[in-house]
Formats: sequence, C-alpha cells, structure tokens
Amino acid sequence: MAAAAPPPPPTPTPSPPSTVPADSTPIGHPLFSRVRLAALSDVPHIHKLIHQMAVFERLTHLFSATESSLSAYLFSSTPFQSFTVFILEVSTKPFPENSPHNYNPNYAPVVRIINSDLPVDDPEWEVFKSEDENVVVAGFVLFFPNFSTFLGKPGFYVEDIFVRECYRRKGLGKVLLSAVAKQAVKMDYGRVEWVVLDWNENAIRFYKEMGAQILPEWRICRLTGKSLEVYGDDI
Amino acid sequence: MAAAAPPPPPTPTPSPPSTVPADSTPIGHPLFSRVRLAALSDVPHIHKLIHQMAVFERLTHLFSATESSLSAYLFSSTPFQSFTVFILEVSTKPFPENSPHNYNPNYAPVVRIINSDLPVDDPEWEVFKSEDENVVVAGFVLFFPNFSTFLGKPGFYVEDIFVRECYRRKGLGKVLLSAVAKQAVKMDYGRVEWVVLDWNENAIRFYKEMGAQILPEWRICRLTGKSLEVYGDDI
Repeated sequence: MAAAAPPPPPTPTPSPPSTVPADSTPIGHPLFSRVRLAALSDVPHIHKLIHQMAVFERLTHLFSATESSLSAYLFSSTPFQSFTVFILEVSTKPFPENSPHNYNPNYAPVVRIINSDLPVDDPEWEVFKSEDENVVVAGFVLFFPNFSTFLGKPGFYVEDIFVRECYRRKGLGKVLLSAVAKQAVKMDYGRVEWVVLDWNENAIRFYKEMGAQILPEWRICRLTGKSLEVYGDDI
Repeated sequence: MAAAAPPPPPTPTPSPPSTVPADSTPIGHPLFSRVRLAALSDVPHIHKLIHQMAVFERLTHLFSATESSLSAYLFSSTPFQSFTVFILEVSTKPFPENSPHNYNPNYAPVVRIINSDLPVDDPEWEVFKSEDENVVVAGFVLFFPNFSTFLGKPGFYVEDIFVRECYRRKGLGKVLLSAVAKQAVKMDYGRVEWVVLDWNENAIRFYKEMGAQILPEWRICRLTGKSLEVYGDDI
C-alpha cells in the first residue's frame, strides 16, 4: 500500500475568548496517544514495563517473568479470547496513517489527543521507541476474560495497567482503561473488574470518577508456591 | 466397549483397635465422590446450582443467567483454556467403571471416598440425578485462567465453588478446590486465586487450612451496568 500523507494537525477546540491568547496559539503541548493491540515484537517493551511496575510497587523479589515466558503465553490465542495486551503509545506528532497497526483485523487503534501543560522530557525515549517514527511506548494494560455466573456472561479482568512515570497525570490511565471498557461493551460483556490497594486513595478516587464501584467486603485468597505444589502430589 | 463389572467395594482403612468395633464393620456411611469435567448435558444442573447459590447469598436480584447463555459461553473452547466447570457427583456405591466420563480425553475424573457419619437424606435427588445409575450432582466449581505478569505465567481463578446444602460439612468443598489446584500444578501454573467475604470466618479458616494466603489490602473495583455502557459510546 502506498504511503499516505499524515493527516493535518488537529484544529484547536474553540474556547471562551478570555482563555485564548490574542494570536490564537493552542495552549500547551498536544500529545497524541494511541491504544493498539500488542504484537509479538512488543515483548521486550512489555517485559521492561512489567519490571518498572515491579520496581514502583517494590515487588522486584516477586518478579520472575522472562521475555520467552511472555512470548509463549500472551500470543497463543485470538485477541480478547484469552490474555490480551493493549500498548499505549504517544507522539508529539500525529500518528502516521500508513502505520501497519492501522490494518490489524482484530482491533482498530484508538487515537486521542491529550493537552499537556509542558513538553514531556522522556529520559528513556531510546529504550521505548516504537517502530513508527516519532512514536514511543508509554504504557500497557493486560486483561483477559472472566465469567460472572450470575450474569451468565463474560467480562474482562484487568490484571495490570501501567503508565511510565514521565507520562503520568495526563489522563493516559483513563485512556487505557476506557479502551478496555469500550471493547467489553462492543463484545456485550457484562463487567470490567480489577483490584486496587485500599490505601491508594488517589487511585480509588480516580476509579470512582470513572464510574467504578469499590467492593469493600471481598478479600483475595491465593494458593501459590509450596502451598500449591503439594496439591500436585496424589493426595 | 463392553461393560466392565463395577470395582469391588473399598477395603476399610485399618484403624487403631480401640475405634474398630469387634465385627470390623466400617464406621459411618461411605460416600463416593467424583470430580469430572462438565459436559453440555450438565447445563440444566449447572443452571439450578447457580440459582441455589444466588438464593444462599441472597443475590437472586442479580441472577440473570439462562441455560442458553451458559451453553454458549461455557463450552466454546478447549477445557482449561477458558471457562471451565468441574461437576461434583456423589454416590453411596462405587462409580461404574464403564461410565463415559472415564474416557474424557481432557480430564480423568478424580474419585475420593468420604466417610459420612449419617446417611445423607437428599430431598432433591430426582432433580439432580446424573446419567450414571445411583449418582447425583452435589456441586460444581467454575474456574478459568488468569495471568500473573510478575510470574510471567498463568494461574487459575475460581469464580464459584458450591456444594448443595445436604452435602456440606463433609470435606467436599476441599475435594473440589483440590482438584483445581492439582490441575494447576499439572499445567505448571503459578497460582490459584479466589475471593471470600471478610465476615465469613468459617470459610477463611477453611481456606487457610488449605494453605491459602488471605490478601488483606486489595479491593475489587467493578465497572458494570450503565456505568460500563457509557464507554460504548464514542467518547
């Protein structure tokens, strides 16, 4: 397919006169964001993002994922039928119209324009740069189907959602979670669920603003490590 | 395949002399239990069990599953790759060796003998009787794969585990959960997880005895109903 010209830059949204400078220059720095399905070639980036998440949560002692384990498990079935990853990318320029990601038969990427007060200084640009020019990976969300026996239909469970430090507080977490919610509605799924730490008040407020209920009474039970392995014996 | 004779009744486990009556009659009433993969023909029983669970949890207002929705979603993929149901059956006699369930290529049923103090009076025998003679459905567990990004591998999430009232307090819940744990180990999965209500002290004690950790800090977030539907609009 012939390379198409990039789309024109977005027209600034009209604002009340009092907030528009005399020369009508757009306020701030537009940041183009794109949510797309991950591909096998994204695994090195996904692995690094999961490691950053473990560092952020001070849980590196629990981190044992490898690129090969991620490659083996995350791409073995049709997207949305099992473990699925959306990649969040950003660019200071519009995304190229001829990007191969635009032709993924399973998912049309979602592009949003974020207005950033300051230009973002990304110290890891080289590590996270994408195949498309001027584009960098800023985060990811990993989710998979769950099932509500009462509803008698599936939902999505969001296992992880992560935005790199320099891209936080810009609404990009909402962009990622909204993309999962939108896909759930499209598939006539009944729920999107995830978990949050009870002391993380900022996150809880953010999730409530997105329309989520926080269920106070349920506790997670986990059987893992040696406590799980004993069940492998013929008991 | 020719019908095989049922296996001989189990030899009672030797016990210390002080607890064995002079005539060596087995104490109590042996109850044979079997955990097997559900088949499409189990859907009417599964639907009734889920409804009983909703009644028990006083959540019938949330119950909207139908037999056709369960049929559509629960049997559309290879067992263990997506939503999977184990059926718990019991019998006062050994299970027939020629049961078609013994020849399921995806799962060999697990049979355990439970010693019941009293014979079980099952008021719903007719409603829940199985295809195999003298066998009745006593419960089920519904589970599906989840994914730990830190471990870099899947686990199982147990959505529901239910034993009918007249078969409770006999260790059958443990039989069901152990079967899921054993399957997780067999598949080299890293975790089995589920949730419990924080006031359900009996259940929490039981799960801890099975080796589970209870994670105190995590809360479930849920986006459902109208709060979810708005994400279907092009926002």
